[in-house]
Amino acid sequence: MFFASDNTAPVAPEVMDALAQANQGYATPYGDDTLMSAARSRLRQVFGAPDAAVYLVATGTAANALSLALCTPPWGAVFCHRDAHVEVDECGAPAFFTGGAKLVLIDGAHARMSPDSLARALAAGDGSVHDVQRSMLSLTNVTENGTVYSPDQIRALTGLAKAHGLPCHMDGARFANALVALGCTPAELTWKAGIDMLSFGGTKNGLMGVEAVVIFDPAKAWEFELRRKRAGHLFSKHRYLSAQMLAYLTDDLWLTLARQANAAAARLSQGFATIPGGSLVHPTEANAVFAAWPRGRHRQAKAQGAQYSLAPFSQSMDGPDAVPLSARLVCSWCTSDDDVDRFLDLIRS
Amino acid sequence: MFFASDNTAPVAPEVMDALAQANQGYATPYGDDTLMSAARSRLRQVFGAPDAAVYLVATGTAANALSLALCTPPWGAVFCHRDAHVEVDECGAPAFFTGGAKLVLIDGAHARMSPDSLARALAAGDGSVHDVQRSMLSLTNVTENGTVYSPDQIRALTGLAKAHGLPCHMDGARFANALVALGCTPAELTWKAGIDMLSFGGTKNGLMGVEAVVIFDPAKAWEFELRRKRAGHLFSKHRYLSAQMLAYLTDDLWLTLARQANAAAARLSQGFATIPGGSLVHPTEANAVFAAWPRGRHRQAKAQGAQYSLAPFSQSMDGPDAVPLSARLVCSWCTSDDDVDRFLDLIRS
Amino acid sequence: MFFASDNTAPVAPEVMDALAQANQGYATPYGDDTLMSAARSRLRQVFGAPDAAVYLVATGTAANALSLALCTPPWGAVFCHRDAHVEVDECGAPAFFTGGAKLVLIDGAHARMSPDSLARALAAGDGSVHDVQRSMLSLTNVTENGTVYSPDQIRALTGLAKAHGLPCHMDGARFANALVALGCTPAELTWKAGIDMLSFGGTKNGLMGVEAVVIFDPAKAWEFELRRKRAGHLFSKHRYLSAQMLAYLTDDLWLTLARQANAAAARLSQGFATIPGGSLVHPTEANAVFAAWPRGRHRQAKAQGAQYSLAPFSQSMDGPDAVPLSARLVCSWCTSDDDVDRFLDLIRS
Amino acid sequence: MFFASDNTAPVAPEVMDALAQANQGYATPYGDDTLMSAARSRLRQVFGAPDAAVYLVATGTAANALSLALCTPPWGAVFCHRDAHVEVDECGAPAFFTGGAKLVLIDGAHARMSPDSLARALAAGDGSVHDVQRSMLSLTNVTENGTVYSPDQIRALTGLAKAHGLPCHMDGARFANALVALGCTPAELTWKAGIDMLSFGGTKNGLMGVEAVVIFDPAKAWEFELRRKRAGHLFSKHRYLSAQMLAYLTDDLWLTLARQANAAAARLSQGFATIPGGSLVHPTEANAVFAAWPRGRHRQAKAQGAQYSLAPFSQSMDGPDAVPLSARLVCSWCTSDDDVDRFLDLIRS
Repeated sequence: MFFASDNTAPVAPEVMDALAQANQGYATPYGDDTLMSAARSRLRQVFGAPDAAVYLVATGTAANALSLALCTPPWGAVFCHRDAHVEVDECGAPAFFTGGAKLVLIDGAHARMSPDSLARALAAGDGSVHDVQRSMLSLTNVTENGTVYSPDQIRALTGLAKAHGLPCHMDGARFANALVALGCTPAELTWKAGIDMLSFGGTKNGLMGVEAVVIFDPAKAWEFELRRKRAGHLFSKHRYLSAQMLAYLTDDLWLTLARQANAAAARLSQGFATIPGGSLVHPTEANAVFAAWPRGRHRQAKAQGAQYSLAPFSQSMDGPDAVPLSARLVCSWCTSDDDVDRFLDLIRS
Repeated sequence: MFFASDNTAPVAPEVMDALAQANQGYATPYGDDTLMSAARSRLRQVFGAPDAAVYLVATGTAANALSLALCTPPWGAVFCHRDAHVEVDECGAPAFFTGGAKLVLIDGAHARMSPDSLARALAAGDGSVHDVQRSMLSLTNVTENGTVYSPDQIRALTGLAKAHGLPCHMDGARFANALVALGCTPAELTWKAGIDMLSFGGTKNGLMGVEAVVIFDPAKAWEFELRRKRAGHLFSKHRYLSAQMLAYLTDDLWLTLARQANAAAARLSQGFATIPGGSLVHPTEANAVFAAWPRGRHRQAKAQGAQYSLAPFSQSMDGPDAVPLSARLVCSWCTSDDDVDRFLDLIRS
Repeated sequence: MFFASDNTAPVAPEVMDALAQANQGYATPYGDDTLMSAARSRLRQVFGAPDAAVYLVATGTAANALSLALCTPPWGAVFCHRDAHVEVDECGAPAFFTGGAKLVLIDGAHARMSPDSLARALAAGDGSVHDVQRSMLSLTNVTENGTVYSPDQIRALTGLAKAHGLPCHMDGARFANALVALGCTPAELTWKAGIDMLSFGGTKNGLMGVEAVVIFDPAKAWEFELRRKRAGHLFSKHRYLSAQMLAYLTDDLWLTLARQANAAAARLSQGFATIPGGSLVHPTEANAVFAAWPRGRHRQAKAQGAQYSLAPFSQSMDGPDAVPLSARLVCSWCTSDDDVDRFLDLIRS
Repeated sequence: MFFASDNTAPVAPEVMDALAQANQGYATPYGDDTLMSAARSRLRQVFGAPDAAVYLVATGTAANALSLALCTPPWGAVFCHRDAHVEVDECGAPAFFTGGAKLVLIDGAHARMSPDSLARALAAGDGSVHDVQRSMLSLTNVTENGTVYSPDQIRALTGLAKAHGLPCHMDGARFANALVALGCTPAELTWKAGIDMLSFGGTKNGLMGVEAVVIFDPAKAWEFELRRKRAGHLFSKHRYLSAQMLAYLTDDLWLTLARQANAAAARLSQGFATIPGGSLVHPTEANAVFAAWPRGRHRQAKAQGAQYSLAPFSQSMDGPDAVPLSARLVCSWCTSDDDVDRFLDLIRS
């Protein structure tokens, strides 16, 4: 019963096989391997973006921070949601990579930016030399609260940004989960909706540690390569990243894995209707469930070894049993129906 | 005949097995996995350093740049050899990670710093507010020219640095190759010789992509963790790094692999005595051979698909056959005697 | 009728005389001039802080940003008010100087931090490696809304910060105005109330362009000198900064000038009681008045050449006459009663 | 007898008068003052560059570091002479302002870059992602050894840089001294010779503390404004900088002052022919004399209060009288013939 994060799950067997296959003889290092050519072609095809620049890195923080650095000068204002991963979970990596750009925090329910809130923030930047300058938009899909932005919702936000000429980035650490939840195409969810640059996650969805950065306008490709190298994120034995990404995109493995995770979350979410005192905190739209239930039943679950996080962390396990505490439960590609049912039984009884 | 770099070689089978073994069920992310505990213990034991802080990252540039950032303020002067990897091969990563520290370049034959040259450079920093401040020493072992520093040679340099209170870092991307070449202990080659912080390489010696940072004085351990995270080098699925490092240290695999590489280089180096017009450019002391031979024979080799780099790159393949060009030939754990002999035959004939 | 800012006022005649006096013969550069020794001694005496390190720079942004950089690592969280000058008026200088530290914005009426809001923000930093780390407090006195913090109010905030071991900085661009408003001693308003480092303003109160940085614990003095030089803020012809600061502190000139400015603001503030539709937006406690009055009367004032800023800037001069617009009116040492009365007449009629 | 630096001299009386004149009533801050408009026009006229962007800062380090930051990305290589002020005298300010760009050091006699040395360094940058990227040229005129580059010499160097598309900066801290030494026009010495951006010094030539940055191609003007503000180098009471610069350019004051300094240096330089054991170390071409003479006579001079620097600093005043020590003697606009003659008498006797 391991719902702490999708990054605690193992690597999908198809990916392990691909790594073994890749481990034959010598290969050109630093991204000039033949597997990378294949992975790049496949990604361009998946996104219907034949000119996109495509790079691999090994962590989501690297993918996001490098992407932001490509789009904002040090004196820029990056508009993101108050709960965005780049704001709360990267130890200031965006400031480090950008040379000190400011994240301007936008409000909105369920971790989705409200267009009104974004519009106000955009308007407040008056272009004076005394303040930082509007520079870009970054939004997360799946959001940090397990909700998704539809293409229309994305377009509403990117439209506001583009009215000021700002490029738009998507943190897609769980892009596959959003995509299968929405049933649209990768293109519809990105460049057709105004996204210029995507962190395309793999690690949370069955890879060992690979994220792609997809730059739909390749004009800044070389700058990206220099930034990646300078940040220590260019891998010498790059073929092992390429192999993972290629396997991920082969036979729709990425979509299959994401569907499994989303289905497990749906089952878990529906189960909360049967928990006395249980309720959902955010709508369950992808592979994460945000729910509240009585503290006493949290204690039971923790005592039986269930792994998950209270959200926010600051809640205390000490105190009256009946008080509800909210939690985040993340399902992965390998969460089984049995895992879900055992967990629900545990907090139901 | 692939001598371009040891990073073009595949992953050792024992390491692939360990990755497969690690791929069971869930694991705590971000370095709190049980394999990391085992790897840390093993590294401390190997170095006779029970208090050392030990961290894993995936690239050598990350290991070096994070180590430097831990030891120098932005206004510091880092003393390194003119040919050091941190100076010539990391696209300025040290400046990025340190916030702009300066690399002060020290001369010395065969990429080993001359103590005299270091002493002069140390003396020149007069502590004026107008100039950067002496802050640390960084040396590479195996050096960029394939030579090694003995413990005594290291101590001569660290002694000069420590007379000014400076901490000392070793870039040990090929540490195992140096160790088996010298026949000393890891402790003798590091902290007993004045090294405070080590980039302990694995990637070039049979791993998929893991380097350890060993901090002999753990006072700055927490700062290292923050810097690693902020730079996007903290892995969520960290167990796959841990597993590699643990396998590397099990049954002396790391030493076995390094001995194979060094032996291949020795065989190759000796072979140059039989090449008409061939000569060694630097002594062969570990797993890299720097040799010169006539241009015409380079053309033969390249035409037959031999892979290696001219060193320096700027030499031209065009021109008279008899002119000698110098090259770098790196052997890896999987370079076979047959590879070496075929290559020698090719340029001999 | 020039109420745009106190930085639009001329230099006090005593200061111009001091500059002329200083312009005799040669002087040692870079802060080793004899006038600096005198200014340093005088500042230490004024603050009852014989060990304080004292440095001069020429702009308030430099004083603040260098001070912050001395107290926070790049991964630190600096707690400041949402309206703080460091947040809204320095084009991201704190991020530049600190290497990317984050400003965490605290609420509170009239630009004074609420202790509750600060306490909540301090508690939220849970020390996880995934987020930035609590590092320091910075508060502004006189605040950006023209209010002042009393020593007790300061102590309430610094006490919260110090419970977490955080150093405390005061942006005292209008320190003299706060001091004379409160009638306490410089020591009571700073180190006795928990302030570790002060930006001691002079430019807005009659100098040409000098701010002192007063570091009550001198342990980081040398680091400050290096940071100042590296940022281009160490002046070669430093005597001209020293002369200004020394004149400022001689015969209580600084207090006299501040009293004049505060008195003008009090007169102006009281005058708003006589303006039809006029009202104060913030209490007038020092030398700035925040008031609202009907748009039509703004038009009159602007048409007659009155200089001041709407606050916020985003309000429009177009629209119905009766709608009140809020404005910021800053008095300086040379604002005369006549200036005030003419302005009031203008918007009254 | 004060030859330590031209920055130890007082401010020219015409400039003090201009400051007093400027000190009337209110003025718009932050560079929007009317004196700045006049100074900008005058500078454009002087340089025959009607479109040039012109900004004022208060220190030479700020002028240089901001200029460099405008022309190089963080991963850039800035080519400068080994003795350049940006390399040896700014505590790493270029690295701070640029975000970590590297200074690549070029050799050449008398602090003038040798075209051959520059050509070799330019060729070595091969554009690999593993190394920093060629980004700009910076040369100093008057050089750090008191020599000057002629327009032809400048063009030879900028031509090499421009063949690689690199912009060219001149550190003109002593631009006026170079100009009057050469007898050419400001345009001939800058944009007509391939200079794109100039640090136009005033402080060392009779101002209190003002340098102009002249950007011949104004496309990056707004970025410069943001960088200046963000670095704390935008002055609120800007009129006092403007007034200095305007006075400097009025009635050719800047040229008159520079001629005085150069004439004093010429007299001093010629005097060394009469010093037993005396010799010039570098040709005297502007306002600084680099000469060597016996240590015993240095002791005499120092004992009598003469102020100057040994160059290099590391030479010792202890030891045999006859050994020559080299020194740097800088003349300013107010160095009198009598000062020169008394100094020469002192070391001659």
